[in-house]
Amino acid sequence: MLIVGEKINATRKRIGQACQEGNAELIVQTVKEQVQGGADYIDVNAGLVGKEVQTMEWVLGLVQQSTELPIMLDSSDPEAMKKGLELVKKKPIVNSISMEKDRLESFTPLLAEHECGVVGLCVSDAGMPSGVDDRLATADALIEHLTGTCGKKLEEIYLDLGVFPVSAQPQAPMDMAAAVEKVMAKYPGLHTIAGLSNVSFGLPERRLLNLTFLALLISRGLDAAICDPNTVGLKATIAAAELLSNRDEFAMNYITAHREGKLSS
Amino acid sequence: MLIVGEKINATRKRIGQACQEGNAELIVQTVKEQVQGGADYIDVNAGLVGKEVQTMEWVLGLVQQSTELPIMLDSSDPEAMKKGLELVKKKPIVNSISMEKDRLESFTPLLAEHECGVVGLCVSDAGMPSGVDDRLATADALIEHLTGTCGKKLEEIYLDLGVFPVSAQPQAPMDMAAAVEKVMAKYPGLHTIAGLSNVSFGLPERRLLNLTFLALLISRGLDAAICDPNTVGLKATIAAAELLSNRDEFAMNYITAHREGKLSS
Repeated sequence: MLIVGEKINATRKRIGQACQEGNAELIVQTVKEQVQGGADYIDVNAGLVGKEVQTMEWVLGLVQQSTELPIMLDSSDPEAMKKGLELVKKKPIVNSISMEKDRLESFTPLLAEHECGVVGLCVSDAGMPSGVDDRLATADALIEHLTGTCGKKLEEIYLDLGVFPVSAQPQAPMDMAAAVEKVMAKYPGLHTIAGLSNVSFGLPERRLLNLTFLALLISRGLDAAICDPNTVGLKATIAAAELLSNRDEFAMNYITAHREGKLSS
Repeated sequence: MLIVGEKINATRKRIGQACQEGNAELIVQTVKEQVQGGADYIDVNAGLVGKEVQTMEWVLGLVQQSTELPIMLDSSDPEAMKKGLELVKKKPIVNSISMEKDRLESFTPLLAEHECGVVGLCVSDAGMPSGVDDRLATADALIEHLTGTCGKKLEEIYLDLGVFPVSAQPQAPMDMAAAVEKVMAKYPGLHTIAGLSNVSFGLPERRLLNLTFLALLISRGLDAAICDPNTVGLKATIAAAELLSNRDEFAMNYITAHREGKLSS
């Protein structure tokens, strides 16, 4: 399971403020906490209105001083993404392209030119997907584009099938789970990725719902998540769900996590 | 979700001893704890070697004095089952019949004669099922027998597809999950039931594995479990998994459980 630490995100109040004020200490500390928590990648979103390119440069410098981990470049602005791609020291993951016309056109040259992984978000100009078949149709189109025009391998693609609040769309979590299962079976080597927190929007005890949903998705083949790596119970949920999904030979990871005290609640 | 309280079981040391010694107080107290914990049925297993029939009569008397809840009669001995069927005040569930020749022959007349639900265990004389197709073949045969010869409705059948330790059979949990999903889709009205604790045999942090597996099974359609209703986290897992599986309209149960303080860990 690949864990992408989500916290370096300038669209969130605390980090946004740190970027505005040049508070390097908070950025560095937040990166180190995520490294400590077991992140595999650090997501960097420098989305300050009007100054995203310069913020990307500043934040990325701090992040890469603080850790050897690779970066997930998180932007909808092709200029900021371009800056990020120039500055990263290791092969990054671009987050994200989609089948929306503008995004597709602006990101395709960057993806074709750079050695990188890519998050493919299953939305198109027809709007958010509804139902399993709709998700799969967008997934097929996106994968064809990424492996064809952009020259990416399936192993470099992280498909995000879209998580919606269960409070608003009661069928959405199971549709997404079914879609994950189907694309993972159809495209061996492909990755699927999910943000954890949307599913529980508007409901109490959000961590319970987020982690339960993560377990359900892992059992359908999900192999990457964007989240706070220090979420209480995250390691335990992943270890248990991977073991039960026959993705932990001889229960090695589960038993190691137990010995490290990461399974107890 | 139907919860069957598993604790009145004379093959377990503490209850077995109470049955031997005529310790009615412990039986009554154990029943009341399970009622308090939210059980929907009380499982009664009076399996003391050599005196199961008389133990069934004694225990059943105590249980039915202590609660109005219906009984799951749990025995492999047709005489003890017959005694139980005579004594229950409400429509019980018989636990269990299987496709093993001896069990099939001895239990079929009892099931055909009495108004009762039934747990159908998917084993045959060929041994424990392995793989999804093998489970489904046994399930088909059992359902045909129960709805045909025994005259049961699908709504009266609780299919147990067999939980095996993931430590010994790494593929078994996902095979069982897939089998649950398929039989629930194929036989509308049918129930599926699982004991929780086998899956984690031989591993640490068993509750974590048991509850994670329960969530995975609920998302495939499982609607009954045999367990200790007071297991910490059980209500939270069920509420979250049912909501995510679109089995909790307007999140009513989830929000009620939250208000009753049953979701916090």
